[in-house]
Amino acid sequence: MTFPAPQLITDPTDPRLDDIRDLKRNEKHLVIAEGPLVADRLVESKHPLRCIIGFRGKLESFFAELSTLHDEQLVNCPVYEVSRETLAKVAGFDMHRGLLAVADRGEESSISDMLDMRTLVVLEGVGDHENIGSIFRNAAGMDIEGVLLGSGTADPLYRRSVRVSMGHVLRTPWTRLDGSYTTWQRSLNQLRDAGFRLVSLTPHPDAVHIADALIDDRGRPWDKVALLVGGEGPGLTEHAMRATDVRARIPMAPGTDSLNVATSAAIAFYERQRGTRGG
Amino acid sequence: MTFPAPQLITDPTDPRLDDIRDLKRNEKHLVIAEGPLVADRLVESKHPLRCIIGFRGKLESFFAELSTLHDEQLVNCPVYEVSRETLAKVAGFDMHRGLLAVADRGEESSISDMLDMRTLVVLEGVGDHENIGSIFRNAAGMDIEGVLLGSGTADPLYRRSVRVSMGHVLRTPWTRLDGSYTTWQRSLNQLRDAGFRLVSLTPHPDAVHIADALIDDRGRPWDKVALLVGGEGPGLTEHAMRATDVRARIPMAPGTDSLNVATSAAIAFYERQRGTRGG
Repeated sequence: MTFPAPQLITDPTDPRLDDIRDLKRNEKHLVIAEGPLVADRLVESKHPLRCIIGFRGKLESFFAELSTLHDEQLVNCPVYEVSRETLAKVAGFDMHRGLLAVADRGEESSISDMLDMRTLVVLEGVGDHENIGSIFRNAAGMDIEGVLLGSGTADPLYRRSVRVSMGHVLRTPWTRLDGSYTTWQRSLNQLRDAGFRLVSLTPHPDAVHIADALIDDRGRPWDKVALLVGGEGPGLTEHAMRATDVRARIPMAPGTDSLNVATSAAIAFYERQRGTRGG
Repeated sequence: MTFPAPQLITDPTDPRLDDIRDLKRNEKHLVIAEGPLVADRLVESKHPLRCIIGFRGKLESFFAELSTLHDEQLVNCPVYEVSRETLAKVAGFDMHRGLLAVADRGEESSISDMLDMRTLVVLEGVGDHENIGSIFRNAAGMDIEGVLLGSGTADPLYRRSVRVSMGHVLRTPWTRLDGSYTTWQRSLNQLRDAGFRLVSLTPHPDAVHIADALIDDRGRPWDKVALLVGGEGPGLTEHAMRATDVRARIPMAPGTDSLNVATSAAIAFYERQRGTRGG
């Protein structure tokens, strides 16, 4: 196919650039992908594209490297060429990556889409956008198939989360559980009924080693696992942990602090992948 | 002991506050610890204290909670009480933590101090201060005893590294290897002669699984291990990897990106600790 010809915009007040105006102070309910790698993942995703904006050279290389599988999303998508100066004036800062894609939010996945998966992560109270982004990046790297977001958990489609996740928030199915105790409880029961072993991650020294928590009495990895991870600082609530089958810890050297939440999650993901390798 | 009485400073131009003047733009060759936890670790460290600066309430609780083991460092250390407004004017931004400790740089450790250790990490080209900080934090948490810094590696005593490490750059012995090829080679040989198994971490799919790289032919963990980790993007140089005994990888799901360098290192540290647990 031939891609739509870029429309050159030189006036920073042009309303066609409103989606990315004053980006740092003005988070809209849109999905913003910065840079070619993440923009490509947005084009591939279920989120309906609104526009692509970039420097001439960046647009050319972006379209040259895109697979033609993306035809549908791109055919009606306006493409705007801007200079570095114009983009900086509109966005409010210098965007050296020189390419953005913008989309509306597509429909969220639902928990029922995830019941056939083998490994899920359930987040509670992870309020930091960078941590959310890192958790999605690490999850994708280590075959965690879906993410459930409990109360107090930040928006994965916030611009910084999208960037830190390297676009994996656009690829990995996720859904938000409503914050009430009953919904949370019902969701965990739904996972258990679908055969998931529910594993809480906690720094508490009485918890079992994460390697042991992920295998059954005969030393075989549980077929299906949902890992629960809480926010930096408070960790999982007691009522969340009570609803799980086992509390697991990553052993820490005495006198040290607990690990960052995304790092802890990465280690649990690694251990899960390690246990199931080759079988 | 009684701790030195704080001297109240109300004039932001007072030269006694020069150590922390315009902190973001003016990185001096000093060690700056922000917040009570990190300040406490600086007081405990080998770095000679220059001063402690904070809000009245923060200073009171800091000294109330300090162990008296710190007498020597504190006895001649001036303590300055400042208001939030004064501190913000001097430092150039609002320091909500309200407490800082400043020190000169103490002497670095040397490689010979580390030869009796069981697990070391060797960094090459890790240029990002946050990554350095995270690596130290993760290392401390998982019993990695020392850090060697190869060429292109950022300063662990830079303010941001200190903060992100939660002060562990002040506790864990580290030393900088001179950047030349021969020095690097000599240092690795020195480690090998001291009985270390040298393990490169790489995303290359031909490398062996990190779990296998850390055990010998009989499935026992190597007694002494030095883990080599390269910078985000380029990774370890070929000449560094060639000098090691084995190249190890953390398995990644197809079509994903490699993990952040501090996350990869954390997983390798975890695997090392996992293998040596209980024996």
